[in-house]
Amino acid sequence: MKCSIPKGTRDFLPAEMARRNYIFDTIREVFKTFAFEPIETPSLENLSTLMGKYGEEGDKLLFKVLNSGDFMKDVDFNQDYHKVAPQICERGLRYDLTVPFARFVVQHRDQIAFPFRRYQLQPVWRADRPQKGRYREFYQCDADMIGSTSLLNETELVQMIDLVFQRLDIEVTVKINNRKILAGIADLIGAPDKLVDITVAIDKLDKIGLENVQKELQERGLTDGQIQALDPVFNLNGTAMEKLAQLEQLFADVPTGLKGVEEMRTLFTLIADIEPKCHIELDLTLARGLNYYTGAIFEVKAHNVSIGSICGGGRYDNLTGIFGMPDVSGVGISFGADRIYDVLTELDKFPADLGQAARAIIINFGGDEQRHAVKLASLLRKAGISALVYPEAAKMKKQMEFAAKKAIPYVLFIGESEAANGTVTIKTMATGEQQTIAQAAAIEALS
Amino acid sequence: MKCSIPKGTRDFLPAEMARRNYIFDTIREVFKTFAFEPIETPSLENLSTLMGKYGEEGDKLLFKVLNSGDFMKDVDFNQDYHKVAPQICERGLRYDLTVPFARFVVQHRDQIAFPFRRYQLQPVWRADRPQKGRYREFYQCDADMIGSTSLLNETELVQMIDLVFQRLDIEVTVKINNRKILAGIADLIGAPDKLVDITVAIDKLDKIGLENVQKELQERGLTDGQIQALDPVFNLNGTAMEKLAQLEQLFADVPTGLKGVEEMRTLFTLIADIEPKCHIELDLTLARGLNYYTGAIFEVKAHNVSIGSICGGGRYDNLTGIFGMPDVSGVGISFGADRIYDVLTELDKFPADLGQAARAIIINFGGDEQRHAVKLASLLRKAGISALVYPEAAKMKKQMEFAAKKAIPYVLFIGESEAANGTVTIKTMATGEQQTIAQAAAIEALS
Repeated sequence: MKCSIPKGTRDFLPAEMARRNYIFDTIREVFKTFAFEPIETPSLENLSTLMGKYGEEGDKLLFKVLNSGDFMKDVDFNQDYHKVAPQICERGLRYDLTVPFARFVVQHRDQIAFPFRRYQLQPVWRADRPQKGRYREFYQCDADMIGSTSLLNETELVQMIDLVFQRLDIEVTVKINNRKILAGIADLIGAPDKLVDITVAIDKLDKIGLENVQKELQERGLTDGQIQALDPVFNLNGTAMEKLAQLEQLFADVPTGLKGVEEMRTLFTLIADIEPKCHIELDLTLARGLNYYTGAIFEVKAHNVSIGSICGGGRYDNLTGIFGMPDVSGVGISFGADRIYDVLTELDKFPADLGQAARAIIINFGGDEQRHAVKLASLLRKAGISALVYPEAAKMKKQMEFAAKKAIPYVLFIGESEAANGTVTIKTMATGEQQTIAQAAAIEALS
Repeated sequence: MKCSIPKGTRDFLPAEMARRNYIFDTIREVFKTFAFEPIETPSLENLSTLMGKYGEEGDKLLFKVLNSGDFMKDVDFNQDYHKVAPQICERGLRYDLTVPFARFVVQHRDQIAFPFRRYQLQPVWRADRPQKGRYREFYQCDADMIGSTSLLNETELVQMIDLVFQRLDIEVTVKINNRKILAGIADLIGAPDKLVDITVAIDKLDKIGLENVQKELQERGLTDGQIQALDPVFNLNGTAMEKLAQLEQLFADVPTGLKGVEEMRTLFTLIADIEPKCHIELDLTLARGLNYYTGAIFEVKAHNVSIGSICGGGRYDNLTGIFGMPDVSGVGISFGADRIYDVLTELDKFPADLGQAARAIIINFGGDEQRHAVKLASLLRKAGISALVYPEAAKMKKQMEFAAKKAIPYVLFIGESEAANGTVTIKTMATGEQQTIAQAAAIEALS
């Protein structure tokens, strides 16, 4: 029988787990100090909850779970497979954490005090074509605040991003835009119905360049005049505040645009107040693929690595509307743990001492000495020190090799004389140094 | 659009998350101090990895995931649904953590130093009929040591069980048996081929009583003589050691049974040495449904509640054999987080202060005071204190109600005079007491 796991999925060995947990713990700790509360939703959702929420492409990428029992009963299989699938699958795997959160808020509205801040660290599944850095099962780390339109929320999210990457020692730029400014631009050039086309095209500016974006806009039905009218937008310059001033001029007759400019001014003022360590940038090319953002849009890029965005988010005014609860505004961010992992690896920024299997191993001499070893192990653990007794009275060489392979920093010996004297011999593996001291002193020293 | 989640699944609100994390953290902490290392395996496994490992019933309870794309291509749907399912589903959801661990060990054998101790806290999925305390998605918390036959391993598992339930403040009995003793009993009554029938029947002794067990054994083809020959086994008495002595007599000509008795003697001696706080019991009726145990079998029952076993495990000599890696012995335990949750709830043993949304909330007076509030929040968080500023300058009553609903213990006010003096007014919600002190002192006091 061959051993393998499905394409696009991964096993995590202890060393990887330690590095992943370092990322998760850092993010979780920041979420907590900002008073976000944890929730979890089921991996399985009703397909009716998920379908139609991620666009046509998203629907295709949903993992569908076969109904239990006789799933074939009363199903006509002489149809297209797209039609058959929802008849034999009532449930699917979570595709992101945002839609389940919206469903959660609506379903538990009576148990929640608004404004509600929740964080959620759980895996999601997408039947995407696997490739470097893209997996079919991966974790998302989301924080959302819902039930408040105050821009203080956006500010705190930026502050959280700043803190997380400070603690992870990654230099980043937080790019900020506002969907209302994008809508204003569409209004400005007289193409309000083309907002999505424009933003999708603008979103690609970084990847395909201005000329190709203009070509794409043409293909999407914009006139040459409209495309030319976009030029001043691509040519804004100066600081964020200066760009906003230029936009204000352009938007003289575009109320949505003006509202966006006003929001961004307030936000940039609030952000200046918190004195972030990271670089903050107004980036009008930032649109992100998601259709539900209505206000601020965030994206975070790490410096000195060519890896896509490692965090993103924005404000959505209508997310719970699809579940029958309108007018609840929310804003949130999502950290991409896998990409952060890759950034830390590439920049060599993981702390060196992550993921010790144990702090101490006690060599097993069998017989009565083993009893002393077991007793000392209990005392070490009681003091919070991770320790193990080698389970067999194997040859010393084998036990020492095991300690070395596991990179356990301290090897302890209780032979006949140590047992008689209540002492223990400690070998510090890094230096080879060895000393015999009282057991109580050893516990103290290893703490 | 109606909001609901699939039958047998659950959302976890912050209060439940805090209680669940209390359980997970306690277990994880003990695992770690015993030098177990974390791993994770994918939620999705190839169905070929899972099928046939959990018996016929288990195969039915596997959640199967529909293939992506045109899953209907080249499939003949004029067959029984059992035949069709594996043709349209290549993958399934993890059913437990043991089989994936076995697959993991074989697949990564070259990267693992044996003996290997791993722990794993992940959800599993079963298409079981949902009922009170039984869910379709639930967490397992497993610790296994693999690559060593030493009974020191079993001893440490008992010690871990003892510690976990000490820390959770639950009184428990650890029941221990040995599959070799059960096999010895089958040999003893001349029905070695009926081992599984006998153990399945014995397993039910607690639930259906001796008479029904005897009836069931009859139905399973045991003769009256064989059933009578079982009597002395049901009538053993005294301490574990005394029972083992009686068994030794019965097993005079039964080598497997004698080996089991010897193992149990060693184990009970080792356990006595570690002086567990919990009750330890030799229970020959303990068989557990699983077929792969070959040595020790464990089960843990909480006192003073009528809830099934909250932890179980045992030794298996052949687990990785199914994946082509024979002769690797392992022993492990699995904590049932959901049942432990129910026990703690029923005994009212959850600590009272779990799951604070925040330690402090700062009232938002808007304008310039808001800026001071934001600044103080930053300082509190830097000191590791979870804090939030109410995001809007809402009416005082509304903000205070929010603080009360969230059970935030300290409410902070920075009005004009506090802002001018660098002070803050702290209200302790439990007592209603209020005092105005320097902000630095407040941070100190809240730490």
